[in-house]
Amino acid sequence: MNSTEVKAFGAKTNTADLEQLQINRREALADDVEIDILYCGVCHSDIHTVRNDWGGSKYPVVPGHEIIGRVISVGENVSKFKEGQLVGVGCMVDSCQHCQSCKDGLEQYCENGMVGTYNGKDEHLGGHTFGGYSEKIVVDQKFVLNVPENLDTKGVAPLLCAGITTWSPLRNWNVKEGDKVGVIGLGGLGHMGIKFAHALGAKVVMITTSPGKSEDAKRLGADEVLISKDEEQMAEHAGSFDFLLNTVPVKHDINPYIGLLKRDATMVLVGAIEPLEFHGGGLIMGRKSVAGSLIGGIKETQEMLDFCGEHDIVSDIEMIDMQNINEAYDRVTSNDVKYRFVIDMQSLKN
Amino acid sequence: MNSTEVKAFGAKTNTADLEQLQINRREALADDVEIDILYCGVCHSDIHTVRNDWGGSKYPVVPGHEIIGRVISVGENVSKFKEGQLVGVGCMVDSCQHCQSCKDGLEQYCENGMVGTYNGKDEHLGGHTFGGYSEKIVVDQKFVLNVPENLDTKGVAPLLCAGITTWSPLRNWNVKEGDKVGVIGLGGLGHMGIKFAHALGAKVVMITTSPGKSEDAKRLGADEVLISKDEEQMAEHAGSFDFLLNTVPVKHDINPYIGLLKRDATMVLVGAIEPLEFHGGGLIMGRKSVAGSLIGGIKETQEMLDFCGEHDIVSDIEMIDMQNINEAYDRVTSNDVKYRFVIDMQSLKN
Repeated sequence: MNSTEVKAFGAKTNTADLEQLQINRREALADDVEIDILYCGVCHSDIHTVRNDWGGSKYPVVPGHEIIGRVISVGENVSKFKEGQLVGVGCMVDSCQHCQSCKDGLEQYCENGMVGTYNGKDEHLGGHTFGGYSEKIVVDQKFVLNVPENLDTKGVAPLLCAGITTWSPLRNWNVKEGDKVGVIGLGGLGHMGIKFAHALGAKVVMITTSPGKSEDAKRLGADEVLISKDEEQMAEHAGSFDFLLNTVPVKHDINPYIGLLKRDATMVLVGAIEPLEFHGGGLIMGRKSVAGSLIGGIKETQEMLDFCGEHDIVSDIEMIDMQNINEAYDRVTSNDVKYRFVIDMQSLKN
Repeated sequence: MNSTEVKAFGAKTNTADLEQLQINRREALADDVEIDILYCGVCHSDIHTVRNDWGGSKYPVVPGHEIIGRVISVGENVSKFKEGQLVGVGCMVDSCQHCQSCKDGLEQYCENGMVGTYNGKDEHLGGHTFGGYSEKIVVDQKFVLNVPENLDTKGVAPLLCAGITTWSPLRNWNVKEGDKVGVIGLGGLGHMGIKFAHALGAKVVMITTSPGKSEDAKRLGADEVLISKDEEQMAEHAGSFDFLLNTVPVKHDINPYIGLLKRDATMVLVGAIEPLEFHGGGLIMGRKSVAGSLIGGIKETQEMLDFCGEHDIVSDIEMIDMQNINEAYDRVTSNDVKYRFVIDMQSLKN
């Protein structure tokens, strides 16, 4: 590892930090799985963390929480995984395991705080965790996922974050065959939302401000495209949706979408961690709900991967080398990717 | 009826309007129940309509949708009610009866628009409907409720709006024994929310900005009082509520309340038909929901009245004569009533 590579991570760092990084590389413990990383997806959160947009970033940052690799070795307590097995690691690598959320298999809501795959507090070695823009990672077996061998492995990486973030709410709110489901926003999350809702048998409407996205939305599985800026189209669909998955990652007016919901229906936000305004009457007049959802638990992540294996679902991706990460970040920021960059980790060794 | 009485209604009117009012008095049809009104509650909506705060008020306005009376006569198709029976009429007097909401017994969400007890479109006689600040009312049997004889009848009137508005969400979100339920705001709605949540076996926390309301909240059934301006108290209760019933009728900051919810818990708004702001991350981080709820359907209103009969629950009221309505309106506007004014309709005949 040299400073050129570190620049490629987009992290602010220096040589002293790098030495620290080497020191903190986690050794495999009894419950750990050591993984040789093949591919790692590029999530917008990586960029926010690298750039400290949310505050609290700890440098050096090694981002990456859409990790696919093969098991190199396992600790003595590990029975679920064996050398050579194809596995994945998502957004979490630890949690308290004893709070109600952990007991319910929803470690992402751990009441004592789940440990993020990067920039989390490393309870084993102290310091903070380092993510998947790396050759290897060592993770507790409870946070390692089994990846079906029949899929195009490169496209599996984004399932670990973009995939589970959209799968979890679709399942939690019980989206089923025949439901009319709207997916708002066509990016990394939205394109997975369309694929999953379609595979679950829903009638899927892609809701976007951009007419140019129609063709691609239909290719991904949308039955219809609704242009949210077209008031006439919006009026036609008023009060008709069983469920809305809102993947928009920035502040926006949610009132027109609330108007699309049926009585008792819910719009779930998975992207916007911003202040949002809505009209109370819009919820009251139809007993409607606005909810939020964060990634997904380990159990449901495994269920999603198994479902993807059965239905041959992966993310649409564009492969990059590690050396092109900064260009990729710029393109993610300007929404210029269909629909997720995945880093070929072999390039780290180049 | 003379002009003095009309002034008491708070309505802008004149003699010509009054003649029209007499002409439009509905005659009993085959499915109708004619009711001699004993008592009528004073709802804040009455004031908003009389003063055209929401726009669209049709004058002359005869407000009142918390109506208790005795049956005088019934139409030939009416079998459920008979002369002399104690009955109630709430916020609705008609709906389409064939949309999904009507079929589901949730006429308040009628997709073709329910007919309000006053200021609604009268489908039988044309013109608009007139409410309960009156000697008599004629209502389709489907919108007439049976009132248990064992209750203090005066206190039953507000159950038809303030009661069902709080009962319906408590039931729809399945509040049950042992749940920790917060009722936000102690007014006409909030005081019924406390009584119902307590009677359903929940641990009830009254959440208010006013420490002065503590004693009364406990008398009404609250186990605890949480002063929302006290950050330390709010932090102690963070993430601990199974359900929040938000009765605040004006614009306010809902973020601190979202912080009180457990994972997967819901805050239901029943009062604020205003633009409200929340932080998307506050919902996402615990899969929380904000929802709205409007009054309740006829079936659940009857269930509520039966429950009140069994549990001896009525509203806390202050009786007034019709002649004091404008003073009462001023006191409602300044939150100076514990907790609902009820008009003794005998006073109309004075």
